[in-house]
Amino acid sequence: MAKEVIIVGGGFAGLKAAKVLGNKEGVHVTLIDKANHHLFQPLLYQVATAGLSQSDIAMPIRSILSEYQNIKVLQGEVTGVDFDAETVATDFGTLSYDHLILACGVRHSYHGNEQWEKHAPGLKTLEQATEIRRRILSAFEVAERAEDEAVRRRALTFVVVGGGPTGVELAGAIGEMTRYTLGRDFRNIDPKLTRIILVESGDRILGSFPKKQSSRATRDLENLGVQVWTKSPVSEIHETSIEVGSEKIETMTVLWAAGIIATDINKDLGVQTGAQGRIVVDSCLNIPGRTNVFVAGDQAAYTDPMGKVLPCLSPVAIQQGQSISENILRDLEGESREPFDYVDKGQMATIGRSRAIVDMGFFRLQGFIAWLTWLLVHIYFISGFNNRLSIFLKWCLSYLTNKKGARIISGATWRFFDTLPEADLEDKTPDAHDVKEIETS
Amino acid sequence: MAKEVIIVGGGFAGLKAAKVLGNKEGVHVTLIDKANHHLFQPLLYQVATAGLSQSDIAMPIRSILSEYQNIKVLQGEVTGVDFDAETVATDFGTLSYDHLILACGVRHSYHGNEQWEKHAPGLKTLEQATEIRRRILSAFEVAERAEDEAVRRRALTFVVVGGGPTGVELAGAIGEMTRYTLGRDFRNIDPKLTRIILVESGDRILGSFPKKQSSRATRDLENLGVQVWTKSPVSEIHETSIEVGSEKIETMTVLWAAGIIATDINKDLGVQTGAQGRIVVDSCLNIPGRTNVFVAGDQAAYTDPMGKVLPCLSPVAIQQGQSISENILRDLEGESREPFDYVDKGQMATIGRSRAIVDMGFFRLQGFIAWLTWLLVHIYFISGFNNRLSIFLKWCLSYLTNKKGARIISGATWRFFDTLPEADLEDKTPDAHDVKEIETS
Repeated sequence: MAKEVIIVGGGFAGLKAAKVLGNKEGVHVTLIDKANHHLFQPLLYQVATAGLSQSDIAMPIRSILSEYQNIKVLQGEVTGVDFDAETVATDFGTLSYDHLILACGVRHSYHGNEQWEKHAPGLKTLEQATEIRRRILSAFEVAERAEDEAVRRRALTFVVVGGGPTGVELAGAIGEMTRYTLGRDFRNIDPKLTRIILVESGDRILGSFPKKQSSRATRDLENLGVQVWTKSPVSEIHETSIEVGSEKIETMTVLWAAGIIATDINKDLGVQTGAQGRIVVDSCLNIPGRTNVFVAGDQAAYTDPMGKVLPCLSPVAIQQGQSISENILRDLEGESREPFDYVDKGQMATIGRSRAIVDMGFFRLQGFIAWLTWLLVHIYFISGFNNRLSIFLKWCLSYLTNKKGARIISGATWRFFDTLPEADLEDKTPDAHDVKEIETS
Repeated sequence: MAKEVIIVGGGFAGLKAAKVLGNKEGVHVTLIDKANHHLFQPLLYQVATAGLSQSDIAMPIRSILSEYQNIKVLQGEVTGVDFDAETVATDFGTLSYDHLILACGVRHSYHGNEQWEKHAPGLKTLEQATEIRRRILSAFEVAERAEDEAVRRRALTFVVVGGGPTGVELAGAIGEMTRYTLGRDFRNIDPKLTRIILVESGDRILGSFPKKQSSRATRDLENLGVQVWTKSPVSEIHETSIEVGSEKIETMTVLWAAGIIATDINKDLGVQTGAQGRIVVDSCLNIPGRTNVFVAGDQAAYTDPMGKVLPCLSPVAIQQGQSISENILRDLEGESREPFDYVDKGQMATIGRSRAIVDMGFFRLQGFIAWLTWLLVHIYFISGFNNRLSIFLKWCLSYLTNKKGARIISGATWRFFDTLPEADLEDKTPDAHDVKEIETS
C-alpha cells in the first residue's frame, strides 16, 4: 500500500517537498493550494511596480508537477486538521494522510491595527501586487488631471512602511519609475518631483544586513529620490494621510512591508507557536509528539543549534521542504531520519534598476556587480523556461529603453480582506465623485 | 490661438485620430479614456483563454502618444456633452472644445436579458477577459476535485453563445486548450472529454463570411471537439445551466458573444441613433447639424454610398479616425472637407491553433495558410515593439510546446456591472460552501 502524503501549500517549501517525492515508489502525494499557481515571491514587487506581468512570476502548480505521475494537485482551502484521526478537512471534502506537510506561509501583520490594511496594502499575493500597481499608477493619473495643487502634491507622495528587503525594493522601484520611466509621458506634472518616503521604526534599514551595507543601500535609495526615515514608528494611517511619530504626511498611497504573522490556521491546531505565531518544530521539523506531521517554510519556527530562529526566506523554505521529504523516503526504506541542517546561502536586496547588496557572510557585494548577481540568481531560480525567457527579455528591454512593460491599470480588486466594501476601493481618488458610468473605450 | 480638440475614447478610432493630429501646429489635443490603456481587442480572446497576458495586448495610452507634445492624455469618465456650450463634462471637471471626436465604442447587449450577464460574461475589457479566464480554468479545477460525477460533467461543459468571430475564436481556443494544453496536467479527469458547444441563433456561423468559409470553419471547429449548434436561440440562462430552445444544458461556464449595443451616453446626447443605438453620422462623420462634432468607430452608424451600415471592425474605426483628423486639419488650412471613403480590407477569423479563414472579397484563404496570414497581420498591427516581441515569442513557444503561458487564476473581479454582488462571483463553484479562509500559499 502506497503511503498518502498531503502537502498543504504550493510555495517554495511545498513545491520542493513534492518534487523530492515525485515519481518515487510507495508514495502518493496530494498537494492542496488555495491558488492554482506557485508564486515567485522575490519578484512580486516588480509586478507591483509595473516591471513584470502576473504570468511572468506565477506558474500553474499542476503544470510544474505534471511530470510526476504520483502527484495530484487540488485547488482548494484547508479548513482544519485532525491529528488523531489523521485527516485534513477542506472545502471540497475530507482527506486522510499517512504523512502531512504543512507549508501555509504567513501573511501581513499590522500589529493589532488591522484596520490600516485597506489604506496600506501589503505585498504577498498576485492580487495584492495588482492592487498596489493600480494604486501607484492611478496616483499619477490623479496628479495629471488635478487642478488643485494640494491634491496633486498628495497624489505625488508615496510612503512605504518597513525598511526590510521588500520595503527597500518597493521604494527603490517607485523611485526609479518616477525618475526614468514616467518622465516623458505626462504634461501637467513632473514625476521627478514625486516624494517617496521609506519609513522604518528601527534605527537603520535592512537590519539583517551588515551596517555598512545598510548605509550603502540608504545612499543608493537617496540617489533615486527616496527619503529614508529611520526611528520613525507609524502611529496612525488614514485614507489620505499617514502619521509618523508626531508628523502627518498627506498621501494617497501608503504601502505596507512591516511585519508578518502566521495564518489563522495555526491558532486552531492546538500546537505551540513561537514568534509571529509560527509553529514551533523540533530538529526534524516535526510538531513535537507528531512524528508524521511536518511544518516547513515561513509557517515553521525552527530554532537552529545556535539558538537562532531561522528567518522567512525562500532558501530556508526550499531546504526544509527537501529535508522533510527525504526523511519521509527514509521512513519508507526503514532508515532513521536525519535532523534538518540549514546551509546559509546569504541574503540579497535590490535597489532600483542597477544597484543591490549581497551578503554571503564572508563575501559581500554592493552596487552594480551585486545587482548583476541578484539578476542572475533570480533568473536562475525562477520556475519554467517560458517565464525565464520572458523576464530576461523584459529586463533587457527595460534596461535599454527605461520603459516598463506592464503599466496597465486593471480593475482587479483585491480579495485578501473580504470585509472591505467595494466602494472603498472605487473611491480611493480623493477628487472622484459619484458619476454615471460611461464606457469610453 | 490653437484649436482645442477633445477625443473621447482611446480605442482604434480615437488613437488614430490623435496620432494624425500629433505634433501638428495650431491644434491642442486632449484624449480622455476611462482606462489608462489602449486595448488590442482582436486578441482579447487569447487573454481569456490563457494564451497571452494582460500587458501583451494593452499599452498605456499616454505612452503610445508620448512623442506628441501637443497631446494630453487624461484618465477619467465623460458624463455628458453640451453641444451648444461646446463643453464636455467629466468626473474631474468640465472641458471646452473647438472640435469634438466621440469614439466611445459599444458594449455587450443581452437583448433585454441583462440579468444573464453575471452568468454569461461578454468579452470587451481586460477585466472581462481575466474573469472569463478565471471561470474556464476554475471549471477544470472543480472537475479535478469533484467526487460527484454530475458536478464533474457540469464543470466540463462549456457553452459559447454567438457564432460571430469572437464566439468562434473563444470556442476554438477552448477546444484547443482541452485537446492539447491541459491533457497531462490532470489526474482525475480527461480534459479531452470536455463538451464545448457553440450556440448560434442564425442558420450558420460567421454569417458575414461567404457560405463556403462558414462550412470550413464549422468543420475546423468540430475537429477541435466543438459542437456547432445553429438555429439555436437561447431562451434562458441560469447559474448552472442554459436553455437552448427546449433543451437544457447543465454547465458551469457560459460565455456571451452574441450582440452589442451602444453605450448609454448615446441616449443622453439627444441625437439620432440607428441600429444597436449607434449614432447616425453624415458623409463627413459629423452628427448632422454639428460640423465640429464627429463620431468614429463602433459608436458611429455610418451608411456607405451603397446603403450599407459599416460593421464594428477595427479597420473601419482606424480609417474613420484618420478621415476625421484630416478634415480637422483641412479646416485649419481653410481647405474644404472630404467625405469619408472606406477601403474594405476584408475580414478574418481564427479557429484554434493553426486554422483560420480570410475573406478579402476577390481573394479567400482558409486552413493553415489563412492562419499564417492572420498571425502576421495581428503581429504587424499591434502597438509597441515590446508587445510585438513578447507575443511573437509566446506564440512560437506555445506552438512548439503546446503549452499556454498565462494559465493563472487571479482573484480579479469584474467591475463592468456594478450591481453584481461580490458573493455571486465567489460562489460560482456549485460545490463550494462557506468555509473559514486560510492562506495556503
